[in-house]
Amino acid sequence: MKKFKNPAIEWLGNRVRILDQTRLPQKEAYLELGDYRSIASALTGLKIRGAPAIGVAGAYAVALGALKIESTAKAEFLEKLRAVIKAMADTRPTARNLFRALDRMRQVAEAGADVAEIKTALVDEAVKIHAWEMEATLEINRYGAGLIKDGFTVLTHCNTGPLATTGYGTALGVIMRAKEQGKDIKVLATETRPLLQGARLTTWELQKAGIPVTLITDSMAGYFMSKGEVDCVIVGADRIAANGDTANKIGTYTLAVLAKENNIPFYVAAPTTTIDPSLATGDEIPIEQRSQEEVTHIQGTRIAPVGIAAANPAFDVTPHRYLTAIITEKGIIRGNYGEGIKEII
Amino acid sequence: MKKFKNPAIEWLGNRVRILDQTRLPQKEAYLELGDYRSIASALTGLKIRGAPAIGVAGAYAVALGALKIESTAKAEFLEKLRAVIKAMADTRPTARNLFRALDRMRQVAEAGADVAEIKTALVDEAVKIHAWEMEATLEINRYGAGLIKDGFTVLTHCNTGPLATTGYGTALGVIMRAKEQGKDIKVLATETRPLLQGARLTTWELQKAGIPVTLITDSMAGYFMSKGEVDCVIVGADRIAANGDTANKIGTYTLAVLAKENNIPFYVAAPTTTIDPSLATGDEIPIEQRSQEEVTHIQGTRIAPVGIAAANPAFDVTPHRYLTAIITEKGIIRGNYGEGIKEII
Repeated sequence: MKKFKNPAIEWLGNRVRILDQTRLPQKEAYLELGDYRSIASALTGLKIRGAPAIGVAGAYAVALGALKIESTAKAEFLEKLRAVIKAMADTRPTARNLFRALDRMRQVAEAGADVAEIKTALVDEAVKIHAWEMEATLEINRYGAGLIKDGFTVLTHCNTGPLATTGYGTALGVIMRAKEQGKDIKVLATETRPLLQGARLTTWELQKAGIPVTLITDSMAGYFMSKGEVDCVIVGADRIAANGDTANKIGTYTLAVLAKENNIPFYVAAPTTTIDPSLATGDEIPIEQRSQEEVTHIQGTRIAPVGIAAANPAFDVTPHRYLTAIITEKGIIRGNYGEGIKEII
Repeated sequence: MKKFKNPAIEWLGNRVRILDQTRLPQKEAYLELGDYRSIASALTGLKIRGAPAIGVAGAYAVALGALKIESTAKAEFLEKLRAVIKAMADTRPTARNLFRALDRMRQVAEAGADVAEIKTALVDEAVKIHAWEMEATLEINRYGAGLIKDGFTVLTHCNTGPLATTGYGTALGVIMRAKEQGKDIKVLATETRPLLQGARLTTWELQKAGIPVTLITDSMAGYFMSKGEVDCVIVGADRIAANGDTANKIGTYTLAVLAKENNIPFYVAAPTTTIDPSLATGDEIPIEQRSQEEVTHIQGTRIAPVGIAAANPAFDVTPHRYLTAIITEKGIIRGNYGEGIKEII
């Protein structure tokens, strides 16, 4: 196993240290957060983002929230903890990993004998969730790397590297693993408007990994696909329904349609914690609608006239028929995604 | 005919006055340009842009270049004029209208009896080209408006309004005409990275016209199409090959693929001066590659790490099979675009 310290989030016993991703690539600024409310605010403000990382941050937030609850009576403690969990659940509606992590934390709390034991168990559980997500990305990378051939130019969207996962990355981790296997890999990274995670974070991570990357606007992906300059597309996911329909960063559906039209494989890489078997199809996945200012302004500069309305759905849903495969830590699912997901979950 | 003074470019006898489109929407700043070099620089810097407007600006540049040539011998004059025409041709390689306008100016110069007569004829010809482009947009609007039904939400890309055409606009002019006909029309405007002509110019023009517009990032078009919230897509063109393949602002191909996938009509609106019958297919259309900084920076702010390479094709080509119709000033072409173009040109 590789030695690797992921800067996205680190547990310091009574607080977490996170790399403020909104400041990248200009500045590597770290924040130490000791209470759940500041983590909630870091999540809504995208200081830490990416479905797996959101889950891990949510778990630590619950642990920190628990540590600060002064009640020693279990019932009262659990009531206060529910408010913490509710606050965390309200931060980002789409990423499945958050709700999975919060569920695990709630179950651990309910199972504990007394408050002291519960507090210790919650910290342990958050650390376990963190370790699990890291391990899962390693397996995803191992399965996925086989799909990336020597000489490939891989197109990816948004950021799915270590920063997004607290591990080795999902889609971007697959690319990095293929590169470590000695393959000659080039990446086309979409900038990913509105918040430019591709331009700011994916390029930054690829540059550190020594992988050649060319930044493009989201609107250029079709140009390169139609010219035969893309060998495959690989993206992450925020929530996958029982039938394989996949919610991911806005623009993903477009890339999947373009890939299909140009006969280019389209892969989704995500841990099984991203799968939500309770939703039959992608139509049921809640899509976060973010503020208009993220579209009318770029890094603080207004780009549209005053008074212009903007839409800002943060995610879209790619119907499973556009996918070539879903790469999970338990293996690669192809063809009948409904069956494949049932077997793997 | 409507009373309308287009601010994009105005002929002042010995100079042109242009609205610097790079300063919009923050500032309505005008520039007076008295020599062809400053117009060439305004074209490469996108202070004036849009295929029809590029053609008109190119024609005025040649007229201004001619007025400043001191030679009175026709042969010497023509040699110097050729250098002016060459400089203008080198500004923007894709927009067909520029080359059509420069050809007309060259022919007028060669046909003139003496230098004094040629100079007058060149000014007249530039004014005629300007008037022609304006009239052509009126006809395009008339033909196109019939395709936009009451209650439609129309998605458009880049800027194709008055600013882009020196007239009433091509695609955006069609939308505005439909609105004038009393139809209830809403517009989804893509921001159009990298240079944000949609966010800066299209919204500005629609706001002035009182047409409800929602700004979206380029990556959101697929989301709204797949949700059934787009009734048709209408865009302009920079060059159309003999078979109907259409070069337009980068991202257009993607919108056409998405429209086809979602059974949404996809219209191109352009004057016949945009059609280049000398090119059999879109593969032959030269695509302008612009500077990396337009992608790595937004309005002067760096968004990517130092040292990251970016691609910046300014246009892409939409194969004719994705088009529902091409709307020209001579009528609407559907089905066999090769035949339709042959008949109309």
